Amino acid sequence: MNLNKTLPVAALALIVPTAALAQDAPDVTPYIFTTLLFLMAGFLVFFMAAGFAMLEAGLVRSKNVTMQLTKNIGLFSIASIMYWLIGFNLMYPGDGWWISGWMGPWFSYTELEAVGLAAEDATLDYASVGSDFFFQLMFVAATASIVSGALAERIKLWPFLIFVAVLTGVMYPISGSWQWGGGWLSEMGFSDFAGSTVVHSVGGWAALAGAIVLGARAGKYGPDGKVHPMLGSNLALATLGTFILWLGWFGFNGGSQLAMGTVGDVTDVSRIFANTNMAAASGAVAALILTQVVYGKVDLTMVLNGALAGLVSITAEPLAPTLFGSLWIGAIGGVIVVFTVPMLDKFKIDDVVGAIPVHLFAGIWGTIAVVFYNGDASIVNQVTGIVAYGVFTFGASFILWMVLKGIMGIRVSEDAELAGLDTTELGMEAYPDFSKG
Amino acid sequence: MNLNKTLPVAALALIVPTAALAQDAPDVTPYIFTTLLFLMAGFLVFFMAAGFAMLEAGLVRSKNVTMQLTKNIGLFSIASIMYWLIGFNLMYPGDGWWISGWMGPWFSYTELEAVGLAAEDATLDYASVGSDFFFQLMFVAATASIVSGALAERIKLWPFLIFVAVLTGVMYPISGSWQWGGGWLSEMGFSDFAGSTVVHSVGGWAALAGAIVLGARAGKYGPDGKVHPMLGSNLALATLGTFILWLGWFGFNGGSQLAMGTVGDVTDVSRIFANTNMAAASGAVAALILTQVVYGKVDLTMVLNGALAGLVSITAEPLAPTLFGSLWIGAIGGVIVVFTVPMLDKFKIDDVVGAIPVHLFAGIWGTIAVVFYNGDASIVNQVTGIVAYGVFTFGASFILWMVLKGIMGIRVSEDAELAGLDTTELGMEAYPDFSKG
Amino acid sequence: MNLNKTLPVAALALIVPTAALAQDAPDVTPYIFTTLLFLMAGFLVFFMAAGFAMLEAGLVRSKNVTMQLTKNIGLFSIASIMYWLIGFNLMYPGDGWWISGWMGPWFSYTELEAVGLAAEDATLDYASVGSDFFFQLMFVAATASIVSGALAERIKLWPFLIFVAVLTGVMYPISGSWQWGGGWLSEMGFSDFAGSTVVHSVGGWAALAGAIVLGARAGKYGPDGKVHPMLGSNLALATLGTFILWLGWFGFNGGSQLAMGTVGDVTDVSRIFANTNMAAASGAVAALILTQVVYGKVDLTMVLNGALAGLVSITAEPLAPTLFGSLWIGAIGGVIVVFTVPMLDKFKIDDVVGAIPVHLFAGIWGTIAVVFYNGDASIVNQVTGIVAYGVFTFGASFILWMVLKGIMGIRVSEDAELAGLDTTELGMEAYPDFSKG
Repeated sequence: MNLNKTLPVAALALIVPTAALAQDAPDVTPYIFTTLLFLMAGFLVFFMAAGFAMLEAGLVRSKNVTMQLTKNIGLFSIASIMYWLIGFNLMYPGDGWWISGWMGPWFSYTELEAVGLAAEDATLDYASVGSDFFFQLMFVAATASIVSGALAERIKLWPFLIFVAVLTGVMYPISGSWQWGGGWLSEMGFSDFAGSTVVHSVGGWAALAGAIVLGARAGKYGPDGKVHPMLGSNLALATLGTFILWLGWFGFNGGSQLAMGTVGDVTDVSRIFANTNMAAASGAVAALILTQVVYGKVDLTMVLNGALAGLVSITAEPLAPTLFGSLWIGAIGGVIVVFTVPMLDKFKIDDVVGAIPVHLFAGIWGTIAVVFYNGDASIVNQVTGIVAYGVFTFGASFILWMVLKGIMGIRVSEDAELAGLDTTELGMEAYPDFSKG
Repeated sequence: MNLNKTLPVAALALIVPTAALAQDAPDVTPYIFTTLLFLMAGFLVFFMAAGFAMLEAGLVRSKNVTMQLTKNIGLFSIASIMYWLIGFNLMYPGDGWWISGWMGPWFSYTELEAVGLAAEDATLDYASVGSDFFFQLMFVAATASIVSGALAERIKLWPFLIFVAVLTGVMYPISGSWQWGGGWLSEMGFSDFAGSTVVHSVGGWAALAGAIVLGARAGKYGPDGKVHPMLGSNLALATLGTFILWLGWFGFNGGSQLAMGTVGDVTDVSRIFANTNMAAASGAVAALILTQVVYGKVDLTMVLNGALAGLVSITAEPLAPTLFGSLWIGAIGGVIVVFTVPMLDKFKIDDVVGAIPVHLFAGIWGTIAVVFYNGDASIVNQVTGIVAYGVFTFGASFILWMVLKGIMGIRVSEDAELAGLDTTELGMEAYPDFSKG
Repeated sequence: MNLNKTLPVAALALIVPTAALAQDAPDVTPYIFTTLLFLMAGFLVFFMAAGFAMLEAGLVRSKNVTMQLTKNIGLFSIASIMYWLIGFNLMYPGDGWWISGWMGPWFSYTELEAVGLAAEDATLDYASVGSDFFFQLMFVAATASIVSGALAERIKLWPFLIFVAVLTGVMYPISGSWQWGGGWLSEMGFSDFAGSTVVHSVGGWAALAGAIVLGARAGKYGPDGKVHPMLGSNLALATLGTFILWLGWFGFNGGSQLAMGTVGDVTDVSRIFANTNMAAASGAVAALILTQVVYGKVDLTMVLNGALAGLVSITAEPLAPTLFGSLWIGAIGGVIVVFTVPMLDKFKIDDVVGAIPVHLFAGIWGTIAVVFYNGDASIVNQVTGIVAYGVFTFGASFILWMVLKGIMGIRVSEDAELAGLDTTELGMEAYPDFSKG
């Protein structure tokens, strides 16, 4: 319709208000979609806490299951509080840093928008602060969960929880701000879409430092140099945990698009979902085939970790690759797990659930793999980021673990370890009705 | 806008259709968003049925697990049918009450909108009736689940299911209509956003009446006044159940905003998600610290119930509080659980999973706590509501339990109880391959 | 902004472009909603993979649990790859068939839209290809899961996985294209909304062929004609799996509306959610009552399968029926399960988890039941579709199973079967800490 020629001047009085209305009332739909993305992705990532809990409860021996469950619900809860109290504003200084609050002019804890926020007071080109906080909070909890798996079956409860409080309140937010808070790494051009490095490697480095300071489980590495396998007590729960993590990862990677209100954004989220699934699948298949070929038998725990490694591998760049790209990036993640789990044992680093191969090694791989499909990424920048996160997180974690060791001890007694942490530390068995084989 | 008079005739041909279109085609986006909120929140609350089932299956002894699972899937299914047949229209009379249906002029069962509903036939300022029904249905099922946990390990299957049918078809809808159906409590000014009282306390009162009528499990309270602990058989499942409930609670509280189509509404939903998570976390941390201090050892089942009590506590007002407010409201919920679980034992009220402390006591607390952040709430109104729900639900439940007891008996024989309900009542063990310790 | 007074005639040049813009910029909101529907429904259906895994792990004996878990994560991963490589474009030729790719001019593997897709390049009246692919992929994985349950406890891992690769890459997509790819059955007027036949019966037929070729488990059918029950090892997991499947089914049926951007579509999705829940509930209640009446005791595994049969029954037409219609359609599904599980045993067809009654028999019933509420469906067309899928899938599956049997054998040795597949085939027990009863 072309109005130019036929419209009489008198009609202007009518048309103009309509045009003005259209101009004055901004389109709030993208804001609602993006906020919804954060809420939906956030509850999916929340559920990863259950995934980690089940994976770890399934991979420890039955005498340590109650402890592992306690750590998992404890760490999530503490992370939720610490990230509110300090972490979020430390990580995203633009959202509140230096604004005075009850802690004085230093910085404030997180505050949400007012109830019934008016459209003109909202950040219409983004999303609700509350939804953003909710989503980001779930990421920091994932980081802490990674640590709990690696250090299972011999670490004391309270030193572990104190470590979690510092990790989630201070360490992760500081290093996270380098990239996602608009800091030096993001300015330099480091690329990590959903956190292969920022989240997963950070968890892996913290776990590695802890595993070194803590030492291996009693009897794991014999004096003869032999590795004594300590079997997970419930592979059904471990598999359930893996599926839950896989589910949650759609939120983890998909939500990291940070927008859903345009054709381009929602289509990108779709790409990310499809790519994320492909990388998980190919990681699992790679481990399935490789354990058959190398060991002559398929190893379920390797397949589970293969799927998770595929997921970690695609997390740094789940958008740009084709489905075929996601396939081979994820598959290499699966291969890495199969080869590095025994390698850690050679160094007598005792990682109970394989968290370091999955989250650190595959996380490094995924961060490097960004350069294959994202033209803006350079290998130099990627390696710089990987090294920066490694030095900072490993260093800070190592110091903190040593301090905790010096002050209160971080390891249970060998008697307690042999009897199991459930009865000795908590006085409560996870499966009291079932006799142990 | 009245175009008739001022618009030159020549322009009418061009402008009117456009203007008419804009006027005739209302913005349907808020309707879609709110309907989507109900669907999403509804499936999250649906999943709480699995959460209750796992929590309860994990907290009963292995000889009663099949029975507990059967009750949980049975009660959800029966609730689904009863709430369709009677409950929904009884609770929300505006939606169908007194409209004639196959049950005559009295009232009709729930009917959904026509397939392919036209925009002009829709309640555009709200949401699809189907989505609303779906969402509300999930709430009534939660109420019934609360009862099943408290009365586990000694109640017969069929009397329990009959109680559930009456609770979900009649009792809950009647009292629910007082508040959410626009009844006298809502007119008076009672405030219960998502149901600390309307849902959780109601479940708790029904459970309390049942626990009193039913009596404690054989051997629970020794003649010496000693309380004999009866340990949950699978704490991994109990923890999984807690995480699933936590997840579902985002839908429970978030969906109760009842709107998502404006900036204000979706931002409020975000507030609710963040507050709900905070209250759960602080409830868990409170129980974690308190059991360490009071008992010298952290008690996982208390931590799980602490998280749930935090959730129940924030349910009456998950919107108005700040995150700090949610923290302390939830933490007090956790404290309540730690102190009231042993208190019930003093009165020899045998609540197998701690449902009464979690849902009733924390529910009362949460309903009172509304006054701290919601200026429209008054303590008098809140207490009036609490008492009204208590008197009605406890009274009606007590009578119904007594009637069931008189007619068919509600308790299995002591032999059956000692042998376990799985073999005696159902002839099917939950874990037949594992010898019992 | 008040334009009334100041706007000269010359300003028309300014206003018109705004009007033109409003006309030129199409409404992208429906595209975003429908894409979101696919993503949300897709992750719900994804989670069904965990549901099947838990259901099956719970219903096999503890000595075969690791194998069952391995098959489930393996089949999902392989399905993800095969459906990308061949299946999707084979099933939906309109989306890529005959387009040249790396496999030459024959056909291409699935490719996603470009990153940051512009609105003018999008299929605005539908949804993102990526989201559609993601959603459809989850369906084919469900088909494969059905097979794994029926053939549990005696089939070798690799022949099973090869069968899955062919089923998900070729067989399911070919027959699926008859209906959902715009093929001859859809042109004829066959009606199957979400796949009672296209998905569930197909899985059931493939399972039936496999069960016949494979034979029953050693000792299942005694020489005396007696059926020896082999009890599931973990009914808590089986119940969890059922609840997860029920949850996923909201996505399965709701997403099959294939649109959410209008009042009519989102209201239809609401109808589907409510109907789906009702059919599951009534299927469970039917089995609950019927096993009580027929056997004198409620049978939990029948109740679980009753709920699933209710779900399968409503899947062919979850939109048109009233809630009462969904109730009786689902209830008949539950009845079918209770009567056909023993019937299969009469024919010595050993279906470990009841997959054939649930997915094939209830699937046939659901496909027929379409005619009661959908005026466009005819019984002749429905039966034609049922027979066509049966002949093709049973035939092709039977041949493939025979070929696999001839080439590599599909069954483990009787010694391995008696000792359990976990130790003999995989060398890894699922519950190593627990002595077997």
